[in-house]
Amino acid sequence: MEYKFSDKIANLKPSAVREILKSTSDPDVISFAAGNPAPEAFPVEDIRAITKKILDEEPILALQYGVTEGYGPLVDLLKHSIKERLGIGSENDALIVTSGATQVMELTTKVLCNEGDTVLVEDPSFIGSLNAFRSHGVKLTGVTLEPDGVNLEELEAALKADDRIRVFYTITNFQNPSGYTLSWEKRKAIYDLACKYDIIILEDNPYGDLRVAGEDIPAIKTLDTEGRVIYAGTFSKVIAPGIRVGYALGPKEILAKMTVGKQTEDVHNVMLSQLLVYHWLKEYDLKSHIARMQDIYRKKLNLMCDLIDSELGGYVEYVRPEGGLFVWCRLRDDLPMLEFCKKAVEKKVAVVPGTAFLADENGSTQFIRLNFSTPTDEEIVTGMKLLGEVAREMTGE
Amino acid sequence: MEYKFSDKIANLKPSAVREILKSTSDPDVISFAAGNPAPEAFPVEDIRAITKKILDEEPILALQYGVTEGYGPLVDLLKHSIKERLGIGSENDALIVTSGATQVMELTTKVLCNEGDTVLVEDPSFIGSLNAFRSHGVKLTGVTLEPDGVNLEELEAALKADDRIRVFYTITNFQNPSGYTLSWEKRKAIYDLACKYDIIILEDNPYGDLRVAGEDIPAIKTLDTEGRVIYAGTFSKVIAPGIRVGYALGPKEILAKMTVGKQTEDVHNVMLSQLLVYHWLKEYDLKSHIARMQDIYRKKLNLMCDLIDSELGGYVEYVRPEGGLFVWCRLRDDLPMLEFCKKAVEKKVAVVPGTAFLADENGSTQFIRLNFSTPTDEEIVTGMKLLGEVAREMTGE
Repeated sequence: MEYKFSDKIANLKPSAVREILKSTSDPDVISFAAGNPAPEAFPVEDIRAITKKILDEEPILALQYGVTEGYGPLVDLLKHSIKERLGIGSENDALIVTSGATQVMELTTKVLCNEGDTVLVEDPSFIGSLNAFRSHGVKLTGVTLEPDGVNLEELEAALKADDRIRVFYTITNFQNPSGYTLSWEKRKAIYDLACKYDIIILEDNPYGDLRVAGEDIPAIKTLDTEGRVIYAGTFSKVIAPGIRVGYALGPKEILAKMTVGKQTEDVHNVMLSQLLVYHWLKEYDLKSHIARMQDIYRKKLNLMCDLIDSELGGYVEYVRPEGGLFVWCRLRDDLPMLEFCKKAVEKKVAVVPGTAFLADENGSTQFIRLNFSTPTDEEIVTGMKLLGEVAREMTGE
Repeated sequence: MEYKFSDKIANLKPSAVREILKSTSDPDVISFAAGNPAPEAFPVEDIRAITKKILDEEPILALQYGVTEGYGPLVDLLKHSIKERLGIGSENDALIVTSGATQVMELTTKVLCNEGDTVLVEDPSFIGSLNAFRSHGVKLTGVTLEPDGVNLEELEAALKADDRIRVFYTITNFQNPSGYTLSWEKRKAIYDLACKYDIIILEDNPYGDLRVAGEDIPAIKTLDTEGRVIYAGTFSKVIAPGIRVGYALGPKEILAKMTVGKQTEDVHNVMLSQLLVYHWLKEYDLKSHIARMQDIYRKKLNLMCDLIDSELGGYVEYVRPEGGLFVWCRLRDDLPMLEFCKKAVEKKVAVVPGTAFLADENGSTQFIRLNFSTPTDEEIVTGMKLLGEVAREMTGE
């Protein structure tokens, strides 16, 4: 038979990044295309010990159905720990546990947006979130991203021009794909604009703990006196992504609707994953683990940036990120971006073409995204040298 | 601020069953309201051994990101095992792993239905699925469920009357809430009608392995020469629900779109859960586990039905199910259903009012749903005696 798909899904393409990842299962390819956290940072020994304890002491709790909001003691612990560490969360906020942070973007759209409503996004932005928005048939409007955050004039112009804007989505620290961090001044300005134009801010902070230089900047959520910020967090980077534990902290009323939405998807998070995060947070030292993790990431980030300078120095411009997983490089105009990516794959190095991250899927850009957390140090060295060769061969220099 | 919710979610109520469950956290209440599998059937020892082995031998695989379709070796093994056990799955079908089976209903609706399209459902049906359909703004049309399946005349009349019907949803074995099983004759007739009126059948079979009497009936999917059946399965009952592992088997083209949809929700299933199911299926004896599980359920089902006969004999009518988790009881007309449920809770016994399962949320019914898998044998005895008391007190007999 011939299949007819819903309008909202008919034109949605599989994530370019995830498709590239599939094609790079070739073990000979050095991949700077992934977004995987560094496996050497996973607290494997802790996880082994805690998992054993859980399955020995409370196997039925770990295996039976749970409530949609999340395992009660974990919800309470997270609220407390987030309040303490980040200073966010009020009497009017609730917290729910989600299956990774992407589900927060999807549920926010599900509960707040009708088809044809608009979500404002940083341009470029994380393709997984962009597709989560698109999967509900909303219109995406991109706002140019600068090294200290979106262009504020453009943001306000967009808000003025479109009365169907419901949500502004921002990844505040070491943004994906750009590595840029939103300045404190712009955070305040964005919150004020959200109040003025009566929209919700969706603040996504998956990389905040991966800071390797500079000072932490308070979350937009710290400013939220009006109850218009939904904050998305995740343990994918701090513990491990395969456990799929994220969370949303936001206004109770909205979170109650998101819970109803989650009931219709996966019903609740895997119980063992939730118990694991609960015991890990309770029994292990989060701060020293983060410090250890930051050491690993600092070394890798610096290695890659030094090699960009030495191997691609004259060919790219970039802003050295203060953390995160990615470096966003603008190729010189005489290096056509897509051709560069193609030639790189021929040399067995995978990078992600920047077009994957644009709000307008048909847009063009000279940027590529490089990931430094997944490859080994050796792979970073070899891969960056190969990218240098590509640039020299293309320009004949 | 005042929040404005999307049309599709604004009127969606939290699952009545899950809300009742929350209120029955009172340990003094005997709950016949849950749908939890019997914890004594969980293969706890096997799970301990396999989990240890996974975390010892392949911790990074268990903790890193995975692909959206599911862990490759598990997908292959499931296809093979399902083909062998149930005789379903062709060259034109694909299989994806989902976070429980409810996600299959949600993704099917997401990819096939626009807002305002219709999903045909058995009336009554599982509230979790009904809400998954509703969460995409589709219209639900109920078809009266009889002890051998939906009324076929009514089904065809509905198909004739509404050209926006995209999907017919059926729970074929020991349906939730009714416990009824769809006859082979009706399975064939439904498939023919689906072909005639060009719709997709969504065949949900969470309880098939919980048969305690009678003979297995082949799935509708075995008839699927045209590629119009999506089959949903789950390990929630055979292994445990807390691991959240379900799957969809269906036409490749549809499953590819469902994969894109899942990418925007939870990205992929928890890796440890997938590895657990993979090793369990590979290294343990599924058939003998199912036989052991059926013994547990047979004993509980018979105990409850015998007590319905002895304690509520003159007050209810029901069809003794051949498996599953539930008995669907019609109260005598002089026992107003909602009042009965209220008086039961006053006596510390929780049952689910049948209204929770109707396609029309404002409909009325004399049915209640009783679950026999979660309570202990002792609780079944005590609880059923209390329900008998309620009936006698209400009628003054």
